[in-house]
Amino acid sequence: MENEATVAGARPARPRGRGRRPADEVRADVLRAVGEVLLTEGIADLTFERVSRLSGVSKTTLYKWWPSRGALALDGYFHAVQDRLAFPDTGDVRADLLDQLRAFVRVMTTTPGGRILTELIGESQTDKELAAAYRALYSSERRRFAAERLRAAQERGQLREDVDVQVVVDQLWGAVYHRLLIPDEPVTDAFVEALVANLLDGVAVR
Amino acid sequence: MENEATVAGARPARPRGRGRRPADEVRADVLRAVGEVLLTEGIADLTFERVSRLSGVSKTTLYKWWPSRGALALDGYFHAVQDRLAFPDTGDVRADLLDQLRAFVRVMTTTPGGRILTELIGESQTDKELAAAYRALYSSERRRFAAERLRAAQERGQLREDVDVQVVVDQLWGAVYHRLLIPDEPVTDAFVEALVANLLDGVAVR
Repeated sequence: MENEATVAGARPARPRGRGRRPADEVRADVLRAVGEVLLTEGIADLTFERVSRLSGVSKTTLYKWWPSRGALALDGYFHAVQDRLAFPDTGDVRADLLDQLRAFVRVMTTTPGGRILTELIGESQTDKELAAAYRALYSSERRRFAAERLRAAQERGQLREDVDVQVVVDQLWGAVYHRLLIPDEPVTDAFVEALVANLLDGVAVR
Repeated sequence: MENEATVAGARPARPRGRGRRPADEVRADVLRAVGEVLLTEGIADLTFERVSRLSGVSKTTLYKWWPSRGALALDGYFHAVQDRLAFPDTGDVRADLLDQLRAFVRVMTTTPGGRILTELIGESQTDKELAAAYRALYSSERRRFAAERLRAAQERGQLREDVDVQVVVDQLWGAVYHRLLIPDEPVTDAFVEALVANLLDGVAVR
């Protein structure tokens, strides 16, 4: 079959009794192909035509699973960066947040990732379907991962219990998105360190 | 002259020797007309044609001063909300930040302001000239006002001296923009209160 041969990183073909592979395997192959295109070339080169060619999956099937190019891109991108943006849990919440935020900033500033997301966020301001896809396929899950890590820190008595962890998400990752979307100020490691120090320790003099 | 008669809130006509009013007065009238359209109707109804009609200023002159509709909108919007988004200085930085942020959220959620800005930020992701206009005519000045107020608090020993006030801007107003642009979570007064409490007091348990 064409897809195993052409999709980078596809699992080895498994014996396939009556021919059809399970849908979730095919889906995973498509997402891998999409992620590869996005992270090496960017979103301009992502078309259903090309993904169909790379994955060996018909355009009809692709459209059935992903109703728009934006949805396809978001799902592929989410899976492509999932490992890089994993939330470590060494027990040291400050070090773990710094670690994850540095990795996040690296993806956003040194791969096409930043441009992909800012353009999709941009388009989603006037495209309600894309906005819904953005939240469903990307941001709400990213928020959930962050919230889980922050809640673990609350349970261990490292973060105040009365803090709404979703607000923390806006004050760390949201602050980075703010600089990416309106680039008055640079997105650097120093910025990330300041974000974490400000928020964990507070900026008021006691 | 047509402009005084048609621009809402225009200053009364002053005696005008040889006819021409100073450019800055005409400019201010145009910006007032633009701001009025934006805050009552939104950006969809803003055209050079209409602004020319409302202000009595020729389209040629308008284009000379504002090379694009985005630039005209941003300049008009900046002036329209300047008073509402002023930074109070009562000496109590916590109360003043809450006050200003509540006013900011009110403008963004109860007037066309939020939609205007998020759409312009959206468009500016793929339009470099608009992105430059956004920073030059809106965001960099808003940052400057916020930074001034925060620095005054640093000088009085209320905020830590080693804090980069520009990072504080991203963790307060930037966090609000994050929720406006990617509306996974609501923008409420409770959110504003949490933003200020988290950042001033810190979220870590000491």
